Amino acid sequence: MLTPPNEAETAAALAQAQLAQALLAPRSVAIVGQSNDAAKTAGRPLKYLRQAEYAGRIYPVNERRDTVLGERAWPSLAALPEVPEHAYIVTGTQAAIEAVQECGRLGVKVATVLADGFTEAGAAGLARAAQLRDVIERTGLRIVGPSSLGVVNLRGKLMLTANAAFDEHPLPAGRIFAASHSGGMIGALLSRGLARGIGFAGLVSVGNEVDLSLGEICAATLDDPAIEGYMLFLESLRHADALRAFALAAARCNKPILAYKLGRSLAARELAVSHTGALAGEDDVAAAFFADCGIARVDTLDGLIEGLPLLARVPARVSVPAADARPPRVGVVTTTAGGATMVVDPLAVRGVGIEPPSTDTLARLAAAGIAVKPARLIDLTLAGTRYDSMKAALDVLVAAPEFDLVLAVVGSSARFHPDLAVKPIIDCAGSAKPLAAFLVPDAPAALAALSRAGVPNFRTPEACADAIAAALSRRLPRLLAAPASARLGGAGDSGAWLDELETYALLDRLGIARAPALAIDTHVTRAPVLPFAYPVAVKALAAGIVHKTDVGGVVLGVADDKALLAAIHQIRVNVAQHRPGIAVDRVLVQPMVCGLGETLIGYRADRDVGPMVMVAAGGVFTEIYRDRSLRLAPVDLATAHAMIGEVRGLIPLAGYRSLPAGDLAALARAIVALSRLAVIDGPAVLEAEINPLIVRPASLGVVAVDALVKLMV
Amino acid sequence: MLTPPNEAETAAALAQAQLAQALLAPRSVAIVGQSNDAAKTAGRPLKYLRQAEYAGRIYPVNERRDTVLGERAWPSLAALPEVPEHAYIVTGTQAAIEAVQECGRLGVKVATVLADGFTEAGAAGLARAAQLRDVIERTGLRIVGPSSLGVVNLRGKLMLTANAAFDEHPLPAGRIFAASHSGGMIGALLSRGLARGIGFAGLVSVGNEVDLSLGEICAATLDDPAIEGYMLFLESLRHADALRAFALAAARCNKPILAYKLGRSLAARELAVSHTGALAGEDDVAAAFFADCGIARVDTLDGLIEGLPLLARVPARVSVPAADARPPRVGVVTTTAGGATMVVDPLAVRGVGIEPPSTDTLARLAAAGIAVKPARLIDLTLAGTRYDSMKAALDVLVAAPEFDLVLAVVGSSARFHPDLAVKPIIDCAGSAKPLAAFLVPDAPAALAALSRAGVPNFRTPEACADAIAAALSRRLPRLLAAPASARLGGAGDSGAWLDELETYALLDRLGIARAPALAIDTHVTRAPVLPFAYPVAVKALAAGIVHKTDVGGVVLGVADDKALLAAIHQIRVNVAQHRPGIAVDRVLVQPMVCGLGETLIGYRADRDVGPMVMVAAGGVFTEIYRDRSLRLAPVDLATAHAMIGEVRGLIPLAGYRSLPAGDLAALARAIVALSRLAVIDGPAVLEAEINPLIVRPASLGVVAVDALVKLMV
Repeated sequence: MLTPPNEAETAAALAQAQLAQALLAPRSVAIVGQSNDAAKTAGRPLKYLRQAEYAGRIYPVNERRDTVLGERAWPSLAALPEVPEHAYIVTGTQAAIEAVQECGRLGVKVATVLADGFTEAGAAGLARAAQLRDVIERTGLRIVGPSSLGVVNLRGKLMLTANAAFDEHPLPAGRIFAASHSGGMIGALLSRGLARGIGFAGLVSVGNEVDLSLGEICAATLDDPAIEGYMLFLESLRHADALRAFALAAARCNKPILAYKLGRSLAARELAVSHTGALAGEDDVAAAFFADCGIARVDTLDGLIEGLPLLARVPARVSVPAADARPPRVGVVTTTAGGATMVVDPLAVRGVGIEPPSTDTLARLAAAGIAVKPARLIDLTLAGTRYDSMKAALDVLVAAPEFDLVLAVVGSSARFHPDLAVKPIIDCAGSAKPLAAFLVPDAPAALAALSRAGVPNFRTPEACADAIAAALSRRLPRLLAAPASARLGGAGDSGAWLDELETYALLDRLGIARAPALAIDTHVTRAPVLPFAYPVAVKALAAGIVHKTDVGGVVLGVADDKALLAAIHQIRVNVAQHRPGIAVDRVLVQPMVCGLGETLIGYRADRDVGPMVMVAAGGVFTEIYRDRSLRLAPVDLATAHAMIGEVRGLIPLAGYRSLPAGDLAALARAIVALSRLAVIDGPAVLEAEINPLIVRPASLGVVAVDALVKLMV
Repeated sequence: MLTPPNEAETAAALAQAQLAQALLAPRSVAIVGQSNDAAKTAGRPLKYLRQAEYAGRIYPVNERRDTVLGERAWPSLAALPEVPEHAYIVTGTQAAIEAVQECGRLGVKVATVLADGFTEAGAAGLARAAQLRDVIERTGLRIVGPSSLGVVNLRGKLMLTANAAFDEHPLPAGRIFAASHSGGMIGALLSRGLARGIGFAGLVSVGNEVDLSLGEICAATLDDPAIEGYMLFLESLRHADALRAFALAAARCNKPILAYKLGRSLAARELAVSHTGALAGEDDVAAAFFADCGIARVDTLDGLIEGLPLLARVPARVSVPAADARPPRVGVVTTTAGGATMVVDPLAVRGVGIEPPSTDTLARLAAAGIAVKPARLIDLTLAGTRYDSMKAALDVLVAAPEFDLVLAVVGSSARFHPDLAVKPIIDCAGSAKPLAAFLVPDAPAALAALSRAGVPNFRTPEACADAIAAALSRRLPRLLAAPASARLGGAGDSGAWLDELETYALLDRLGIARAPALAIDTHVTRAPVLPFAYPVAVKALAAGIVHKTDVGGVVLGVADDKALLAAIHQIRVNVAQHRPGIAVDRVLVQPMVCGLGETLIGYRADRDVGPMVMVAAGGVFTEIYRDRSLRLAPVDLATAHAMIGEVRGLIPLAGYRSLPAGDLAALARAIVALSRLAVIDGPAVLEAEINPLIVRPASLGVVAVDALVKLMV
């Protein structure tokens, strides 16, 4: 039984519909600062609107001219005969602020701002952005930008953009909505899409998002039945909460999202990570966020342009894989083994397996008269490049249960003889199994025919592999026990460190096993009776010391009472020398704990994406190889096991070769427990790291022997 | 003073010139098996030759018809009025063998064979290949193929191909020679090049290389002044010796080579086996081979197609970098920061640094009136998308000494207004500094204008980064102390293992420090006096046992005489149980050696590329992360240091954080010493591995504590 929406939901839906209308389908627009020179940036919007035959009312505003581009110009927004629904402000920075204020006064619904000089421009720019926010709060005006190259609705013929690549008529409309942090990229997406038969319903350059974020804008368009999918060009994960909310809503509407995000190289360059505090902004954080939101991610520009038709045909998998779930499989049929291997190679590098056909499938191929060798590729070289052989092979493959997707790769015949091996692909376009095509030679006519028939097709082997891998790895959004934004910090490096005893108390509350610990006053003259046997570790106990080893605050392998007193003395001397401001009044004594290996688990309220949990192999190799797995927090046990499976450095603990297996079940439970910092009551934790977490043999558990926790203040 | 060539060199040069002539510029050709149906594969060669207006004499041979495609056909090669210089045999497999035999009898110089069914087709196929080789040895006939889609010389109008993508006239000739293991790919290279203004002097599908290898064919064309560079599509490193000889000769002629090789993934390497019969080695072996041969390697198909114009403008760096050599640097100027970052990101992932301009350069930009923020990108957003600002910025950048290459990235204006920011790039085409362009929107006219002006340009950010990284990392071939092929094994897994004492004797000869070792008879009843202190390691000593640990043949940390006798007994029992056929009459006793870390160094006579040397971090992580560095052997000290710098797992031994530094100078000397197995006298070594090689603190050296050596038999 469907629950009817409550009042608040109804109001939110209404606000969203009104926003979408004013943003993308306004009945009247003003262009504030419209130039009389169509070659200038500020001259383009009016030219484009007229070129596209926009049906609404257009009011050019130019305080110095009576006419622009041969039309009447108005001296100000206030002078217009009506309040326009949407104003595109293409003036300089200061005039833009004034125009926004005027929009607010008049009751304009949406203002899109071209000027830069705001959030990216230091303190003065931030002050200007605050002026804009003030208008928004006081008047209810919504702003796109600043630094926005505009908003385009191709079906509505709303060409509210200053991007040079839109100077073209007619521009065919399609069913994809594109949103970009980079204004230049909307021109690249449009023009590259045009060249491939990929059409857009609309495109928006979101600029610096002082008000409307990319996620909010996209969410406002979700009710539009003419939009079937979303193409995102991202430079950061700013406003990740809105992006996630949009992604979840899009999944409910069954509208796929494909994203390209800059910033892979940050991960490649930054080798050293001293603690989870450095996670923010790194590429694997973005990857984990996209995966948990059900957003498919590509690495190549062509993969972004060409990928959505395929993505729309591949159903998202369940959000958390079953332990015995088989990885997705691609069946490949080709007239050229070398050409097909160009796709197989990057697919395999991305972890997508190319499996040979089953015995049943081979038998069906043979029954259809197709002679192939039993190999990973169905290579039609022996069968010949003929319509009949390709068609028969495809008919068998699209019905073969072992494949999640069928890829057809056609060689040189595709250029001048598409009737031979491209036509049969087109004739299989209606199959229920996802089908994709890569043509090895330059074959624009055949590609266009495939596009017209609705067969996803690709111009480069890299984009083909990229899009297939993105589509096959996409999962439904993982629903979290609480909104991930609940604990979003934004507190940066501020926060208060707990001392180690306080940290252990928190671990006890979470149910994560840790080594027993005894605090001793550093002024003792006799060693106390310890509740555990020697050898022990002795550590300075003071919240002010985060990295104890760096200040000589740790002595390991202490063998007896005498050595214990000496260690305490040594620690006091060392810390006094390194950190004269801190008096070490207590030390923590713990037994030395042995296990099969060390791991590191961490939690962080990430600046961008909110609570995250991480697992890595311990030791210096974690940093050197950047080998770790991340998820939005909290996670369940199945997800924790999937995370462990992603860390290559944990392979030895799974019983590699003749090594004994560690208690990975207990490790998974510890990950789940730590991730619950996102949802439990009590002071909000900014970051927590257990390093090392000792993994003992199977069924003997894991033991934390050191940990750090920073609270939000 | 130039040494005049000796008689052998003169003869070799003459043979090569004659081969090139018969292969690519024959005065007469026969097409054996020419079909009367131009739509069939065997019908194409005559059609293409006539279409191209080939000026030589053409003899179609068809034993069943008097005419083909309206021309006289001859019943056999023997019936022709002359012996053709080059025969393209397009018959089935058995008829092809007979035609080759006929070619041999008649004195045809080159036969190109289309049929498959040879080296890739099991034992029967290998027997057929042997029949071909027999003809070659007896008659001097040279063969291209089998499985060759043909040989094309576009300037000479020799269209001796059955590839469907050549059905086009006219086909413009260019200055690149393309060679491919895959026959289908010559059509892809031609057609994709055509679409980008990249033209070819010739193309060859080398097929299964039973006689002429890809390297030999390319080498034969090196004297042709119209060929300026080589584009290679490789599926394996079969005949690596000929490829290396060609690469060295090409470097002497200053003709760049750009290669794409399948097989980054295991799946793709397995495909190469089934497809061509060639065994493909690991990908990092190929990478090391290309680097040491001065062959630039790209990862993307578009990088291959578009990369040579750039490669031709970037001089190769010295073959071994100086220790303080700075990495290559790219200066980037753009009208769209988002678009430019799409190139910067993959460049940085590939290790090419994008450096901000120097203070001097910034001052010169300011003096030229270009307002930019001091950042890694010269972003002209503030200066505006105008001819003057782009031209002034480029003029400053191409003169800036801190940059090895300048990349210009143009945004949406490139589509309809190339006069603004593309024209200034064209106007800088004559600069001495390598210059490349990436256009963010679809802008075919502007790309064509750049190509006409000789400015290397790219259609995707990935191909742009790929080609730039390949060009900037290309080095001159590293000259080896002896031909790398001298020790080429080809012996597969056969060979004889040395026992550990024999192995140590070899290490002593190479000058690699190893732990002292004493062999003891396993029948002793009293422990002998050891020349070193306890604790010791005890190991079974028998050449038949390669992996001693697996059979219980090692006991570590033996503390005293009694434990030594017990260990000897235990090893005898263990080995008797695991390997009943082997009697352990001796054990080896060594002191336990401690150090800062373990490494692994290895040597092998690789089946494809010959002697290689390798260094890796020790332990299980070597296998898990596949983190190692390889070179052709032998290497010098500077190369050994460069290798150490490439292994991330060795970072801790370089003094990472507060860890003490290991003796990496001694490690480098050990790598050099091991690599000399390629050149020293004595029995040829198939493979050698020192694992672990203990690295001690700086100046205390390295110590081998276990090693394996296999000799060629």
